[in-house]
Amino acid sequence: MSDVPPQVRCKLTLAYRGTSYHGWQRQIEGGVGGVELPTVQSTLRLALQRVVNHPVVVVGSSRTDAGVHARGQVAHFDTIRTQIPLDRLSYAVNAKLPADVCITRIERVADDFDAIKGTVEKGYRYLIHNGPSKDVFAGDLAFHMPPHPAPLVAPAMHTAAQHLVGEHDFASFAKPGHGRDSTVRTITRCAVSREGKSVFIDIAGTGFLWNQVRIIAGTLLRVGTGLIEADAIPQMLAKRNRLAAGPTAPAYGLYLEWIRYANAE
Amino acid sequence: MSDVPPQVRCKLTLAYRGTSYHGWQRQIEGGVGGVELPTVQSTLRLALQRVVNHPVVVVGSSRTDAGVHARGQVAHFDTIRTQIPLDRLSYAVNAKLPADVCITRIERVADDFDAIKGTVEKGYRYLIHNGPSKDVFAGDLAFHMPPHPAPLVAPAMHTAAQHLVGEHDFASFAKPGHGRDSTVRTITRCAVSREGKSVFIDIAGTGFLWNQVRIIAGTLLRVGTGLIEADAIPQMLAKRNRLAAGPTAPAYGLYLEWIRYANAE
Repeated sequence: MSDVPPQVRCKLTLAYRGTSYHGWQRQIEGGVGGVELPTVQSTLRLALQRVVNHPVVVVGSSRTDAGVHARGQVAHFDTIRTQIPLDRLSYAVNAKLPADVCITRIERVADDFDAIKGTVEKGYRYLIHNGPSKDVFAGDLAFHMPPHPAPLVAPAMHTAAQHLVGEHDFASFAKPGHGRDSTVRTITRCAVSREGKSVFIDIAGTGFLWNQVRIIAGTLLRVGTGLIEADAIPQMLAKRNRLAAGPTAPAYGLYLEWIRYANAE
Repeated sequence: MSDVPPQVRCKLTLAYRGTSYHGWQRQIEGGVGGVELPTVQSTLRLALQRVVNHPVVVVGSSRTDAGVHARGQVAHFDTIRTQIPLDRLSYAVNAKLPADVCITRIERVADDFDAIKGTVEKGYRYLIHNGPSKDVFAGDLAFHMPPHPAPLVAPAMHTAAQHLVGEHDFASFAKPGHGRDSTVRTITRCAVSREGKSVFIDIAGTGFLWNQVRIIAGTLLRVGTGLIEADAIPQMLAKRNRLAAGPTAPAYGLYLEWIRYANAE
């Protein structure tokens, strides 16, 4: 006989507005005995614990930075409350979450499902508000670049983006010092489009380096304003030096859109 | 010779997120010597005064309620700074406004232009988020009605709305006690449409009673959920009694979209 009660593993899909959080990952400021900073992970964990009434560990697929938003973050956790119907669990936890975090889907998964290791592909969107006036309804939800002296040239940005698709060493497009073995990653799609005053950069790939999407966005924006040519991208990649690429675009324009798993529905 | 320096009248078009404000209209709590509550009018007035460096009076077309948003509020004010180019004035004032208020257009107008009296027609939108999960990006920007037991039936709402178009006595659709001589108003358009999880109620008219748009929205929502029939509207109008119509929909779903003037461009 085992002392361990039976558990079920749940997969959560989450949306959150990152503005008020110190990113996804739990952070203690001041070391042992320090203060727990407000993060999405800790906020979610506390709400889950209030519903299932036992300690839980929440494992999230992506460590989104402070201010970054998500429409499709994925996390898993285990619970001994095997009797609670999933829709009721989701409803109860959402009622305890603040207005800027929401479970959009909950599924029972196999015990070996891992939100981090099981990730096959991720999709991000970078949103630019390219209108003359600030958008009072999207202050922290889009990067505002007024169209001066001219609107962003989305087709040129799209052309430049195609140089990033495929397997490349993205050392020039990563914040250094994050301790990764390799800076080689594969981007499966990078598309730039415009709808009215909004410019979208949609990027998908098998995995991303620290700040990679924001540095790609900052670089493509330089192409969009005509500061650099679309054909300059291959040389930037070849230099394998962060200084070769453009600036890091602000966190609040970035959205984690979706995460794909091997045994996806 | 006159002691009064030459003045110019300016017409402002404004966008604001109403969440943080006690409505448009300046309010002093506690009477003489009391506290000035944060309103859009007072916020705009203070920013204007810091730029033109003389006292100004801001006259707004619509006294939007607390929490109501605007994409096209119109106001006028007079200034003796006749030399400042309008685009520079707009830029300078916007730099002093908080992130949730913005001048989107500024024009020099005739001295007899009046933002209130000159109004010919106004357009409002009421926005409903009809998805199962709350929208973390639109907490205060749309009224959330989950699609349970069924999604809102926008075509039935649209059919009901057509009974409101034209000149009617809207006593049933107004908050009583606002001291209007007449409760007869003309609605020029009332259309209900759906785009994905969003349902829009677009209303235009020559003038509106207190809470009229929100009571119309609350009533049409009852049609959309099947609580009342589309054909019940004429009887509601005929009763001339606030209790005959539906509830007042929350302020944070409402947008003042545009205001039309006689000599419009």
